[in-house]
Amino acid sequence: MPAYKKKDFPVSKIRRFLEPGPIVLVSSAWKGRTNIMTMGWHMVMEFEPSLIGCYIWDANHSYEMIRRSRECVINIPTLDLANKVVAIGNSSGADIDKFAEFDLTAARAKHVAAPLIAECYANFECKVHDTSLLRKYGIFVLEVVKAHVATSPKYPKTMHYRGDGVFMIAGRNVSLRRRFKPQNL
Amino acid sequence: MPAYKKKDFPVSKIRRFLEPGPIVLVSSAWKGRTNIMTMGWHMVMEFEPSLIGCYIWDANHSYEMIRRSRECVINIPTLDLANKVVAIGNSSGADIDKFAEFDLTAARAKHVAAPLIAECYANFECKVHDTSLLRKYGIFVLEVVKAHVATSPKYPKTMHYRGDGVFMIAGRNVSLRRRFKPQNL
Repeated sequence: MPAYKKKDFPVSKIRRFLEPGPIVLVSSAWKGRTNIMTMGWHMVMEFEPSLIGCYIWDANHSYEMIRRSRECVINIPTLDLANKVVAIGNSSGADIDKFAEFDLTAARAKHVAAPLIAECYANFECKVHDTSLLRKYGIFVLEVVKAHVATSPKYPKTMHYRGDGVFMIAGRNVSLRRRFKPQNL
Repeated sequence: MPAYKKKDFPVSKIRRFLEPGPIVLVSSAWKGRTNIMTMGWHMVMEFEPSLIGCYIWDANHSYEMIRRSRECVINIPTLDLANKVVAIGNSSGADIDKFAEFDLTAARAKHVAAPLIAECYANFECKVHDTSLLRKYGIFVLEVVKAHVATSPKYPKTMHYRGDGVFMIAGRNVSLRRRFKPQNL
């Protein structure tokens, strides 16, 4: 596994990594145990505070861990972690310790007890901001309170789930910056 | 512009196109006028009914058109429409007719008055399902009631916005299907 060198990143700008729609790994901690789940249903909701909406099925082991601890970390994996991403989705934290089982490194976060997954390209420490959408829609509104992002590459090979076991891998990048009105950038 | 040949597609399976996180064009109609806006903040919320959450800023001209008509169409553009996607985001429907201005074809939808954008790869006819998240978060919960999808290619070159004028273009596709537990596909 590559060990990404990371630096602090402004939380108000993490849309750069989430808006393109990658699958993410959500890590959590509760009562001395940790867990990891894969998540594909999420959206950016606001820049400041840095809010994201995340659908988590209440049958997932992570659901109660996040609801009770009111914290988690959103980790962005890249193509090199593909097999682990699928294996994490295939298993339940009720049965196994996923960090140990899948040989992933739990790094200490700054503002939350949930661990960062060191092998991921980016890690966003989150506090639960609002649970009012939980009952009706299973959506946690999270606030990103700290962001750690790899210094290189600028544009990671993220994985974007299409369903049916197929992932689209992030392709080339095109800047149309000169065509934008400045206030729309 | 390529004229995509389209067929009906199961509304419960449109996650295939939205979960990877493309920028979309939202078309609407109200009182004899139409409009188009670009949208990057959306998420799949449920398979059946086919629900998606969409953030729309209330300063957008489309906001009131969708709120009042309770309908819209989510259209998925591909790379060939890149310049038009940016131009649509740069302009307001309060000032211009975007279909005319950007030479796009308004095709008749089946269940909504809002027009389909014929040049887009896919068109999802939507009814507003729930406005209860609108006041606090600006999120429309939409139900996709009819989906039209191009018969080819299977995987379109969608555009995924990173901010700062940069789009990631959908890259290659990798099937890890054989690694999934069948119930997780």
